[in-house]
Amino acid sequence: MEDLKAMDFFDLVSNMRAMRRLKPDPVPMELIWKVLNAGVQAPSGQNTQPWKFILISEPEAKRWFADRYALAMETRFGLSRDPGNRGPTRRRGQLRALFHQMDHMHEAPYLLLVCGARDWPFKVAEEDRVGLAPPNYGAIYPCVQNILLACRALGLGAALTTMHQVFEDDLQAYFQIPDEYGVVVTIPIGYPIGRFGSVTRISAQEKTFLNRWGTSPQ
Amino acid sequence: MEDLKAMDFFDLVSNMRAMRRLKPDPVPMELIWKVLNAGVQAPSGQNTQPWKFILISEPEAKRWFADRYALAMETRFGLSRDPGNRGPTRRRGQLRALFHQMDHMHEAPYLLLVCGARDWPFKVAEEDRVGLAPPNYGAIYPCVQNILLACRALGLGAALTTMHQVFEDDLQAYFQIPDEYGVVVTIPIGYPIGRFGSVTRISAQEKTFLNRWGTSPQ
Repeated sequence: MEDLKAMDFFDLVSNMRAMRRLKPDPVPMELIWKVLNAGVQAPSGQNTQPWKFILISEPEAKRWFADRYALAMETRFGLSRDPGNRGPTRRRGQLRALFHQMDHMHEAPYLLLVCGARDWPFKVAEEDRVGLAPPNYGAIYPCVQNILLACRALGLGAALTTMHQVFEDDLQAYFQIPDEYGVVVTIPIGYPIGRFGSVTRISAQEKTFLNRWGTSPQ
Repeated sequence: MEDLKAMDFFDLVSNMRAMRRLKPDPVPMELIWKVLNAGVQAPSGQNTQPWKFILISEPEAKRWFADRYALAMETRFGLSRDPGNRGPTRRRGQLRALFHQMDHMHEAPYLLLVCGARDWPFKVAEEDRVGLAPPNYGAIYPCVQNILLACRALGLGAALTTMHQVFEDDLQAYFQIPDEYGVVVTIPIGYPIGRFGSVTRISAQEKTFLNRWGTSPQ
């Protein structure tokens, strides 16, 4: 394993690929606390810290989640798991990793549900909402990003998933989550199978305008 | 200045206080690109990278933004800037920092508008929406958090603000932002006045349940 101490922040962010293939090997709680305590350092408006975590290690509960997740995935992506020769190679690899994650989700040592208060400053009148208001994503995602970076820094594999939204009502009931909170992301955590690698991104220079939309920087 | 190289990720996250007092001194573009390129390394669903940046350095544009920001702040918090003896000391200090930020916003070398595609998977029927759909906050905030951490790693002061939402229509028009994108956060960036310090947070242990909501970990 590389010398984690020597890795600076900029190397860390550019090597934080989504790790969807995890070993079933146990992960010490000490590492999990280190990860979650990095999460809670995130900023939130007026420091409300509106996150809660449900850490799932119980086999039955992991299986419950994994079964519903698989159903949601198949509804979304169809039953054909084999991408065959369709689409670019990178996309086919991603799809295989997604299905691997789905098939082995119950084997991850931990599934982490990151919950957020449903205090989203929604621009829709109360009576026009369909179901519960969404949680305050803006307040939770900085915490989620800290969690993912902390996993990477400790050599743990993690990847954020949001497919739980498809079975949100069942999820709330099963894990006894009160209506005031919602699950923002689910993160399977474990030691990775395979190696961390650099991410592929469009450079900031191509994403930036100077002073007005449309004006490229020199 | 501390030895930035020696700072590991866990020190970085726990020392990333919102820095609202900034010097007007220029910041080299090289550092800004380093910050923004850390931002774009963030994960996004299916790697869509739905962020765009508008980097504002033009004095007139900064002044335009600062004036509207001040009006929004005063609408929100009232005209009385002096918190007097009301509220806890920490809260009074926060309020003073917010007003300092407001009064000096046009002096920051850069105001960064982080924009996101308005492709939020909204649970409200199209016809019931009030105004434009919000940008996809979940896709943008990991990028925002990377930007804030990168500023901290480089010794730059930054703090995220969202008060621009109050004058969103004018903002879209002034910066010629197409309707397909919205501004998620505005981040004034510059060298900080004062020192970085550790953040105050509730520990992860007090935010975590095991297997079910309500079950405390041992």
